[in-house]
Amino acid sequence: MKFLIIGSVALDTVQTPFGKIKNALGGSAIYASISASYFTDVKVLGIAGVDFPQKYIKLLKRRGIDASGIEIRNGKTFRWEGKYGWNLNSPQTLATHLNLLAEFNPRLSESDKNSDFILLANNDPDLQLKVISQVPSSKLIAADTIELWIRKKKAKLIKVLEAIDILMINEDEARLLSKETNLVKAAKKIISYGTPKVIIKKGEHGLLYVNKNSFFSCPGYPLETVYDPTGAGDSFAGGFLGFLSSVNTLNEAAYRKALIYGSVMASYNVEGFSLNVLSRLNKRLIEKRYKEFRKLTKF
Amino acid sequence: MKFLIIGSVALDTVQTPFGKIKNALGGSAIYASISASYFTDVKVLGIAGVDFPQKYIKLLKRRGIDASGIEIRNGKTFRWEGKYGWNLNSPQTLATHLNLLAEFNPRLSESDKNSDFILLANNDPDLQLKVISQVPSSKLIAADTIELWIRKKKAKLIKVLEAIDILMINEDEARLLSKETNLVKAAKKIISYGTPKVIIKKGEHGLLYVNKNSFFSCPGYPLETVYDPTGAGDSFAGGFLGFLSSVNTLNEAAYRKALIYGSVMASYNVEGFSLNVLSRLNKRLIEKRYKEFRKLTKF
Repeated sequence: MKFLIIGSVALDTVQTPFGKIKNALGGSAIYASISASYFTDVKVLGIAGVDFPQKYIKLLKRRGIDASGIEIRNGKTFRWEGKYGWNLNSPQTLATHLNLLAEFNPRLSESDKNSDFILLANNDPDLQLKVISQVPSSKLIAADTIELWIRKKKAKLIKVLEAIDILMINEDEARLLSKETNLVKAAKKIISYGTPKVIIKKGEHGLLYVNKNSFFSCPGYPLETVYDPTGAGDSFAGGFLGFLSSVNTLNEAAYRKALIYGSVMASYNVEGFSLNVLSRLNKRLIEKRYKEFRKLTKF
Repeated sequence: MKFLIIGSVALDTVQTPFGKIKNALGGSAIYASISASYFTDVKVLGIAGVDFPQKYIKLLKRRGIDASGIEIRNGKTFRWEGKYGWNLNSPQTLATHLNLLAEFNPRLSESDKNSDFILLANNDPDLQLKVISQVPSSKLIAADTIELWIRKKKAKLIKVLEAIDILMINEDEARLLSKETNLVKAAKKIISYGTPKVIIKKGEHGLLYVNKNSFFSCPGYPLETVYDPTGAGDSFAGGFLGFLSSVNTLNEAAYRKALIYGSVMASYNVEGFSLNVLSRLNKRLIEKRYKEFRKLTKF
C-alpha cells in the first residue's frame, strides 16, 4: 500500500448560508482518502457504527480505496454538527458526539507499516503517538491537529512533532501553538519543536510551506462560490500526500507540485456539500485547475 | 513627467510594539513618490505648512523627485497619529489634524496633465474628481480610497470609479464597497462600477488583481519582523505604477511584474519606521527581493 490514512469516519450535519445537509458522509479520513484516490493507492483505518450507510463504503470502493481497515462495530458512528456564517471561516460547532470514535485504537498490519506515506489526520495526540510507535522511523509521517489538542495536550502534541516529518496546521492554530503572531516566526518555532516541514493553511489566502532551507507560498484559488468549507484541510492533505506518494523523487519541486495539487483538491471540495464534488472529479478536471493555478500565479 | 502623484504630505506620530516615532515624514504622496523614484521620473503635488522640515524636501530631491508641486503655505502640515497592536493590522487612529490639507486644491500644469500615469492617492472623492476633470481621458489614472469615503461619499466615489483605470483597495474596504464577502465577487462588482482593473490588497496575505479577462494572485513576502506598516499601500502603489511607467508595452505580463515590484517596495517599507528603509534602497536590493518573490512562488 502506498498511502495509509488514519482518521475519523463521520456523519456530518452542516449548515451554511447556501443550504443544509443532515448525517452526510464526512470525517477526516474520508475527505483525505477520496482526495488521495485520484493520485495513488490508498488504505483507510477508521471506525464506524452499524448506522454507517453501506453506500458510503461502496463509494470508497468505487474510488479504489481499500476500506477494509474501517472497523464496523455495534454502536453509533462519530457525528459532528456545525454551522458556518457568511464569512465561511471557522464553523460554530453545534454538537459533537464521539460515539465509537472514543474507542478507536488503530492497529497497523505489517503491510500498513510499510506504506510510503502515513497521514495521521486530526486526533488526540495520545492516539497519534500510539500509531507512531508502531511505524518504522524511516517512514514518512504527516499529521494534522486542532486547537483543542494545542490547548489541552500541548506536551503530548510536541512529542508527536518530534516524531513526524510534516505538520499541517491552520494559521490560527500555528499562532496558538508557537505563541508567535508572525507566521514566519510561528513556522520556525514549530520546526524547532522537531518536525522538519510545516504547512500553514490559510484558507482563502492559500498556504505557506516552510522547511529548514526555504519558503513556498501559494495563494488560494479565487473561488466565487464556497458552499461548504468542511473537509478542506483533509482534502488538501489527501491531494498533497497522494501526489507525493505517486512520484519517485521527493525533492523540493515535487513538494511544491504536491502543495498545488492539494490546493486544487481543497478548492474543488468546498464547491459542494459533503463529498458531492470531491467524489465526482476526474484527472482532466484536476489537471485543468492545476494549470489555472499556474496561470494565476505566473509572472 | 512620467508619473504624477497627488496625495498627502504628513507628519506622522506612530507607535508599534517595536517603538515610537514623533512627527516623522509621512503621507501617501511621500511614500508613493519615494517608492516610485527607484523606477521612473516622479512629480508630487501636495500641500504642507511652514513647520514641514526642509530636510524632508531635500530627501525628496535627493531621490530625484520633482517636489516643486508641494505648496508650502503659512500654517501647519497635516498630522496623523496612530497606534498598532501586536497583530500589526489596521492601526487605531489616535488623532487626525487635517490642518492645511483641508485647503488642498491641486491645479495641474499642462506638463502635469501629460504624465503617463497619474496616481490619486487616498483623498476625498470630491477632490479626486476635481483632478480627474483636469486630465485628458486618454491618460492612465489609478486611485486609492479608504473606509471613510466608502461610508460617507459612496456616490461620489462611484463617479471616481467610472473615470479611472485602476482601483487599489484593501480587502475589508473592497468588501464594504461591494457588499460582497467573497473577494472574487467583490472585485467583479467593483469592476461593474466602471474601473476596468482592481487590485485588492491583503496585507501579509499578498494581493489579488482582477481585470475583465483574468486573475492574478501573489502572496505577501514572508517577513519575520514588521516594524511599522504605515505607508505599505502607498509604497505598493508607487512601486507598481512607477514600474509600469518605465516600460514600453502595457500588457498583462508588465502588469504582473509591476504588481511584484509594488509588493517588493511595500515589503521593504514595513521593515522600518517612517521612510527609514524605503528611502535607503537601491536597484540591487529591489532586484534581489524580486528574485526572492520568484523563488518563493515558483512551482
